[in-house]
Amino acid sequence: MKNVLTIALLISTNMVGNAQLNHGYPIDPVSFTSVTVTDSFWGQRLKASREVTIPLAFSKCEETGRYENFVKAAHPSDTYKVEGLSFDDTDVYKTIEGASYSLQTYPDKKLQKYIDSVLVIVAAAQEPDGYLYTARTMNPKHPHNWAGKERWVAVENLSHEFYNLGHMIEGAVAHYQATGKRNFLDIAIKYADCVCREIGDGAQQKKLVPGHQIAEMALVKLYLVTGDKKYLDQAKFFLDARGYTSRKDAYSQAHKPVVEQDEAVGHAVRAAYMYSGMADVAAITGDSSYIKAIDKIWDNIVSKKIYVTGGIGARHAGEAFGNNYELPNSSAYCETCAAIGNVYMNYRLFLLHGDAKYFDVLERTLYNGLISGVSLDGGSFFYPNPLASNGKYSRKPWFGCACCPSNVSRFIPSLPGYVYAVKDNQVYVNLYLSNKAELIVNKKKVVLEQETGYPWNGDIRVKVAQGNQEFALKLRIPGWVRNEVLPSGLYSYADNQKPTYRIIVNGQETANTLNNGYLSIERKWKKGDVVKIHFDMLPRIVKANEKVVDDKGRVSVERGPIVYCAEWPDNKCNVHTVLLNQHPQFKVVEKPELLYGISQLKTDAQALSYDKNGKLITKDTELTLIPYYAWAHRGEGDMKVWLPIDVSAASALPQEVQKWEDNGFFKN
Amino acid sequence: MKNVLTIALLISTNMVGNAQLNHGYPIDPVSFTSVTVTDSFWGQRLKASREVTIPLAFSKCEETGRYENFVKAAHPSDTYKVEGLSFDDTDVYKTIEGASYSLQTYPDKKLQKYIDSVLVIVAAAQEPDGYLYTARTMNPKHPHNWAGKERWVAVENLSHEFYNLGHMIEGAVAHYQATGKRNFLDIAIKYADCVCREIGDGAQQKKLVPGHQIAEMALVKLYLVTGDKKYLDQAKFFLDARGYTSRKDAYSQAHKPVVEQDEAVGHAVRAAYMYSGMADVAAITGDSSYIKAIDKIWDNIVSKKIYVTGGIGARHAGEAFGNNYELPNSSAYCETCAAIGNVYMNYRLFLLHGDAKYFDVLERTLYNGLISGVSLDGGSFFYPNPLASNGKYSRKPWFGCACCPSNVSRFIPSLPGYVYAVKDNQVYVNLYLSNKAELIVNKKKVVLEQETGYPWNGDIRVKVAQGNQEFALKLRIPGWVRNEVLPSGLYSYADNQKPTYRIIVNGQETANTLNNGYLSIERKWKKGDVVKIHFDMLPRIVKANEKVVDDKGRVSVERGPIVYCAEWPDNKCNVHTVLLNQHPQFKVVEKPELLYGISQLKTDAQALSYDKNGKLITKDTELTLIPYYAWAHRGEGDMKVWLPIDVSAASALPQEVQKWEDNGFFKN
Repeated sequence: MKNVLTIALLISTNMVGNAQLNHGYPIDPVSFTSVTVTDSFWGQRLKASREVTIPLAFSKCEETGRYENFVKAAHPSDTYKVEGLSFDDTDVYKTIEGASYSLQTYPDKKLQKYIDSVLVIVAAAQEPDGYLYTARTMNPKHPHNWAGKERWVAVENLSHEFYNLGHMIEGAVAHYQATGKRNFLDIAIKYADCVCREIGDGAQQKKLVPGHQIAEMALVKLYLVTGDKKYLDQAKFFLDARGYTSRKDAYSQAHKPVVEQDEAVGHAVRAAYMYSGMADVAAITGDSSYIKAIDKIWDNIVSKKIYVTGGIGARHAGEAFGNNYELPNSSAYCETCAAIGNVYMNYRLFLLHGDAKYFDVLERTLYNGLISGVSLDGGSFFYPNPLASNGKYSRKPWFGCACCPSNVSRFIPSLPGYVYAVKDNQVYVNLYLSNKAELIVNKKKVVLEQETGYPWNGDIRVKVAQGNQEFALKLRIPGWVRNEVLPSGLYSYADNQKPTYRIIVNGQETANTLNNGYLSIERKWKKGDVVKIHFDMLPRIVKANEKVVDDKGRVSVERGPIVYCAEWPDNKCNVHTVLLNQHPQFKVVEKPELLYGISQLKTDAQALSYDKNGKLITKDTELTLIPYYAWAHRGEGDMKVWLPIDVSAASALPQEVQKWEDNGFFKN
Repeated sequence: MKNVLTIALLISTNMVGNAQLNHGYPIDPVSFTSVTVTDSFWGQRLKASREVTIPLAFSKCEETGRYENFVKAAHPSDTYKVEGLSFDDTDVYKTIEGASYSLQTYPDKKLQKYIDSVLVIVAAAQEPDGYLYTARTMNPKHPHNWAGKERWVAVENLSHEFYNLGHMIEGAVAHYQATGKRNFLDIAIKYADCVCREIGDGAQQKKLVPGHQIAEMALVKLYLVTGDKKYLDQAKFFLDARGYTSRKDAYSQAHKPVVEQDEAVGHAVRAAYMYSGMADVAAITGDSSYIKAIDKIWDNIVSKKIYVTGGIGARHAGEAFGNNYELPNSSAYCETCAAIGNVYMNYRLFLLHGDAKYFDVLERTLYNGLISGVSLDGGSFFYPNPLASNGKYSRKPWFGCACCPSNVSRFIPSLPGYVYAVKDNQVYVNLYLSNKAELIVNKKKVVLEQETGYPWNGDIRVKVAQGNQEFALKLRIPGWVRNEVLPSGLYSYADNQKPTYRIIVNGQETANTLNNGYLSIERKWKKGDVVKIHFDMLPRIVKANEKVVDDKGRVSVERGPIVYCAEWPDNKCNVHTVLLNQHPQFKVVEKPELLYGISQLKTDAQALSYDKNGKLITKDTELTLIPYYAWAHRGEGDMKVWLPIDVSAASALPQEVQKWEDNGFFKN
């Protein structure tokens, strides 16, 4: 089944058997298996994922008793104490998913065999009717079996039985496509059939929806891989019944029917997964009310609820979206899983709408708030990704709630799938990294080769290595080149620089106008054609909308897609007592030996301190910045993304007083 | 009925008829009618209250249709639109209460007549069975009559029918005691009887509690004035049923039975009134479970939920207490009514326990967060009392929700009642201001005269003008003299100064030890005896517990009982961009011509700004501070109580990161 031309593995997939089902999106994904990464930046990340993250996740599943839970469920006993979390099974499924992706580009018989052995115990834990949830099955009488005295009774709350189903399907589909073997897929189908039988709108069924979404996306995949429409219907049921069951809270996006929602609220991962599931269902069914809702929600996120790092979910309480403009820095939650969910959502909206603005959000998330979640060596992880630290925070090799490490295990290997997309005779180039890609355009093969030092420089060379035919090469001109931090007014470039770009096709400069953020080169391409792209890589100063009180009087600094931060090892001064001068100039210093190769930014700044009499003084200092994703690799210490620059605003108050004075309550 | 010797007007009172009922507190209050204020600081406030605040409140009641509501209720009509708020009637009752207090020390026939005419329309609005709630009576069919289709159905939520009863009783008792006339008292008794009939634990009764407390305190007063125990029982029912009716939220302190509560939560005014009501009931019934609960709640407030100004209720949302240590400055709510409630609560705890620590809280609230709520001229009011402002906030002459102005109307005239208290042959001197007081000690008259320039200087002269007998004069040595900001570790003095005090009795220095914060002088006193008290009035630097993230790296400054702030008119620099040097020295500058006479504090400080190249620089500047209560009298502008002093901490991060890292959720 390894097939470098598989279209759209993540979204659509071949049906079991032969018939081809369509994912419904107007734009076709180009699977990661079609893209061979030759890049140093991402190559290093993929290698770390393959060689460190995935093996580590498997060993942690073993070491922490996650495998043992399946063994226990295979032989239930009143004596078993249900420990751990209700969704521990999913770490096994998610790691198998990541390993399956890895297997598709790096076949590994030993790994295959290991997975098969894990799947034997997974299968053994399944109850005869398909139900597979070790926390309950191992000892249904245990007072803390998460699921309660009967199946499903806690599914909208604590038990995560449908969440487990979702990750099981995601893992099983990936494993089936990587290996052609049905040993995981059949388990997932059996559990999915059990859920489809027992849960729904029917008289004999229970009307319940997932407490934690993901089954919606997963069931669409199962529909596409099996051709059985009941899975699609079940996904749609899970969405449409939301807000109509007894659970009606914003925390789990059940405060109103999904099609009436217009603001991102509640648990950020659940939310992003749900919006992604809505896109998947809408792509197939053409349901415009879903699309209308997620378009509004996306607008709300990018204009009021996203960090400059692309992170989402401001609050620790409930791991949730905050209010509009509630974007604290040191207490930013920005769960790694939520960043992954944000990529899922923006990718799907791109496939629906074909606008580069979704990839502006995706790229910002990818290079900053997402990969910050895993160490450069692949061996330790952030759960939250704060934008400032007082030095008491570091990545850990695993967590009691291990969703983030196992999610990283499955996300990173899929990264090459986000580089290209195809629609009829249009080829979208969405990300820039060195790679060789085999695409199908108008049913004919086109091979493209990218060479670049991105994200450290803005020069990219795209060569047509194969493919004599007419097609449009649509190059995404990133938002940061178009002087737009994000497709909203939430952040803006505060400096007066205007980066430019140049596109040279076979030595000839083109000046085509942009359409939806793409520069399209339409021609009859032939082997050996070369497109040279240059993006100005100016260090840029970003300020936040003044409603973001936590960034008031502060700026962040970025270059290309990379958001920078000040961290303690590079600076003599305390990064929390340094202020930028009013018109900082930044110089770029390449550091190939530091943190797997980075570019630093340096500028003059003022450190505040006291003289021997206790009088406050300023001292000239050089401030060094490093990429945000690379912080916390050299021990615990202070870090800061948003740097004070405007003394009056920095010390000034939030506009709270004015805000409440205007509410009319105090007026006569 | 005007009787300068009336004991304990606020708490106990003479029974209608003759029998004396006891308020139950071990310590007897000394009524404000027994204390003639000759003070310049408080004399000015009392004059402003009498001449400006009370007349203004009456004219606003008239102008805004509050009287008209009673007229409409006297002649109900389907055509009446119910406007305003559900508790607008109480502004009338509260202003009558304040005016009644005023009448007791400043008889005024015109004012008496005016009140009588108001009471005619109040009486006319009462339904035959006693129910008196104009918003419903004027048009019971109006969809927005607040009370709903039937009486009481919204009483735990919107309608405030019991809150109206509470303020009616408070006003009626005061009016009865001031004038001896029953025209208000009989209205209140009739409404109270209606509530006692319809609400309770009986089979024919509705089991409901007040949405907004105050009826508890008020019914105890009605019991003491009438001798009818059913009012005491009703007060106790309102307390004991709380947490057992359908309303069970923390917002209205109904999340659990009152005796199980141990943290101050929810709406701060409701809370403080409830705790005060619990003390009143417990004093009479001896119910130790009430006292145990309010003792714990008091501990929680003073150690985790009170501002340095004595303000309580941190949050605008719900006008509520925040979490422990949640004490933001610019968005501090600190409702004026909550400060008044805080005085009520601490006064009652003093009467129960006889410890000066309650008066430390009371004095801090009184001189800072309470009187800041009313302008020096008595004509405009703060609803919230923030500890920092960006200049968009000023006092207003009235509010749509006018609880604070009318509460100030009734509080300020009662102030002299907080100066003294008596227990057997012990005389407590709790507050220091120039006055002449006639006390009853061991059934014999004692006249004391205080002379002082307090709070601007710490010299007080107490003369025994009458009273040859043996008694203990118990002088409160304020917490700020005992080096204790509050009776908890929430705030502490950061300087190394040790203020001292001296007590000289007839020229002879005494060095008695303190007991519960009091220095007791026991002797056979005779006319002409003089006690001279000296408290060191050092400007002091206060820092907050490090858990108060909003005060991190900052200090506040105080002198005597007065908390200071930096305000724009006194300073060349922007008060939000100025930092104190590490070891600031403050000099005291008397300004008798400024803001009705204040002492300023001045110190060297550093203002941050930029040179012409945009480089950050510090500039020497003189920072001038004024009393917090006196801010916002010279136009809108910046103000700040907590001043940055520690650069590393001031710019440093809250400890949030560490906090959530420790919650175990992320641990393996």
